[in-house]
Amino acid sequence: MRNRTLAEEPLVAAVAVALILLLSGLLRPALAQEVLPSWNDTAAKSRIVEFVKATVTEGGDGYVAPYDRIAVFDNDGTLWSEQPIYFQFGFMIDRVKTLAPQHPDWKTKEPYKSILDGDPMGALKSGEKGIVDLAMTTHAGMTTDQFSKIVTDWFATAKHPKTGKPYDEMTFVPMRELLDYLRSNGFKTYIVSGGGVEFMRPMTEKMYGIPPEQVVGSTILTEYAIVGDVPVLRRLPKIDFVDDGKGKPAGINKFIGRRPIFVAGNSDGDYEMLRWVTAAKGPGFAMIVHHTDDAREVAYDRKSAIGKLDKALDEAERRNWLVVDMKADWKRVFAFDN
Amino acid sequence: MRNRTLAEEPLVAAVAVALILLLSGLLRPALAQEVLPSWNDTAAKSRIVEFVKATVTEGGDGYVAPYDRIAVFDNDGTLWSEQPIYFQFGFMIDRVKTLAPQHPDWKTKEPYKSILDGDPMGALKSGEKGIVDLAMTTHAGMTTDQFSKIVTDWFATAKHPKTGKPYDEMTFVPMRELLDYLRSNGFKTYIVSGGGVEFMRPMTEKMYGIPPEQVVGSTILTEYAIVGDVPVLRRLPKIDFVDDGKGKPAGINKFIGRRPIFVAGNSDGDYEMLRWVTAAKGPGFAMIVHHTDDAREVAYDRKSAIGKLDKALDEAERRNWLVVDMKADWKRVFAFDN
Repeated sequence: MRNRTLAEEPLVAAVAVALILLLSGLLRPALAQEVLPSWNDTAAKSRIVEFVKATVTEGGDGYVAPYDRIAVFDNDGTLWSEQPIYFQFGFMIDRVKTLAPQHPDWKTKEPYKSILDGDPMGALKSGEKGIVDLAMTTHAGMTTDQFSKIVTDWFATAKHPKTGKPYDEMTFVPMRELLDYLRSNGFKTYIVSGGGVEFMRPMTEKMYGIPPEQVVGSTILTEYAIVGDVPVLRRLPKIDFVDDGKGKPAGINKFIGRRPIFVAGNSDGDYEMLRWVTAAKGPGFAMIVHHTDDAREVAYDRKSAIGKLDKALDEAERRNWLVVDMKADWKRVFAFDN
Repeated sequence: MRNRTLAEEPLVAAVAVALILLLSGLLRPALAQEVLPSWNDTAAKSRIVEFVKATVTEGGDGYVAPYDRIAVFDNDGTLWSEQPIYFQFGFMIDRVKTLAPQHPDWKTKEPYKSILDGDPMGALKSGEKGIVDLAMTTHAGMTTDQFSKIVTDWFATAKHPKTGKPYDEMTFVPMRELLDYLRSNGFKTYIVSGGGVEFMRPMTEKMYGIPPEQVVGSTILTEYAIVGDVPVLRRLPKIDFVDDGKGKPAGINKFIGRRPIFVAGNSDGDYEMLRWVTAAKGPGFAMIVHHTDDAREVAYDRKSAIGKLDKALDEAERRNWLVVDMKADWKRVFAFDN
């Protein structure tokens, strides 16, 4: 380290003065922005803002050190729509159509037959075994790099059956604002979803500002192999971990290794995760996205194509979990709405 | 947003001037620090520094965007010592002694008998089944919170059998400097170890500045349960995932979801991970910590208690992997050395 020259001294002083003034808040009003602009000024928004303000207020009862500000979000029905079907099921349907020429037997074999006959919901009748078979056929047998490209290509071309929009535009604007708001307050944001982790990871940075390593989800086994002197990871047709229900706290523990202080979900598949977060000794905030808006999305209340919302909704009040009424609490749902 | 008052204008100007001067580098010499001070000025240090400089030099061939600057480190023998035994095995030995009064049958039952008779290496003779049994007995049957406390308490009291130092002081200073150096250049640093993830996580922030969610390791199954209306995760005596050898690229894919550009290991258990990182199309740097220093640590070259270093060392030159010679390349090994 050399000595500072005389010419540098005033610069150091200028920086110091500027930083002190910045920190003292004199410039802050000029930078102020409206918080959660797509949320109506209802109790829901207030409760969220109050919690976040408390976590960042040093010396207060609700203060949480930045290191511990972990927030987890379910994906399907919480960050983006899950209607009329889980979007990953839409991906499976399209994969079956793409792969069908190589599998002539699918014309007469369920669950493929229903899909090829234009009745995808009929495929659900083949039960868990049929769905797992369908998932493995469409998600395994290739390398991880190949699968990532298949997913990325699908998102680039596939359209939502009802809105005609690309699936990655089917995200809820208020929830994206919430992610941004939490991050701007020092939170590290994660997805914790029953969906396949490698179905989500290629898109989450673009969709939500969440990098792949902050996506927890269901996994299938992979196997390291050398192909022509190049190492690859092959996706095997075998489920490794199901990140749903009781699996969500286990997934959080496995992938993140500590307990979040903020959680958002929308179904009983998130119930255990909501319990897990709000059972901590310190501050913990849980919210449920309640689908009440038939004009802008779908009002399905306690039901959905596969999941349901009963237990979590029944216990929300006594556990102090915030129930967000999409119709009443959100100004906007999708970015393409006006 | 309100209009700026006249009084604020000079402040804004001062900040702007200061920032411009900072960015133009006029102040940089005053802040300069020696890079990797515990490394000797040998080719090893040069190669590391050249790689890192290239990754941060915009417009250069070796430039890597901050988003993709992921670095992964093996733990045992790479970030801290693994001699005379893996430290997690030391933990198991102490756990057996603690739990022995509740298990009178252990006096005559291997692998417990050897440990209680003061011959821990004898326990290894019971083979993989015996070791797995030992690991499950000492690592499962409690909640995740309880296990975290057991590990933290052990680190607070246990001493290394040779140096008499707490185990968390058995880290290699040059490697800690390397972690800091990478992070100061925008890298996100991870551990990818065969060790148990929940044995490492309570300590890695303190030891290496690596938070729990950036620790990839072997896992056992956990089960969500309600105990007296409180949700807990119980650790089950069943291995979930072994993060070693071919498991390391799979573990990186599962937990991180993208390919690192920097990797450090010290044994053939890291071989596949070294291949995986350096097979990427863009820049990729791999290094092997070679244990050559019998005075300051242990010179065990290609052997160790359990692992070995053959294949990785044999292929290092042709694959352009850096082999770090601890004796020649490091000024210091442990912080307690003078």
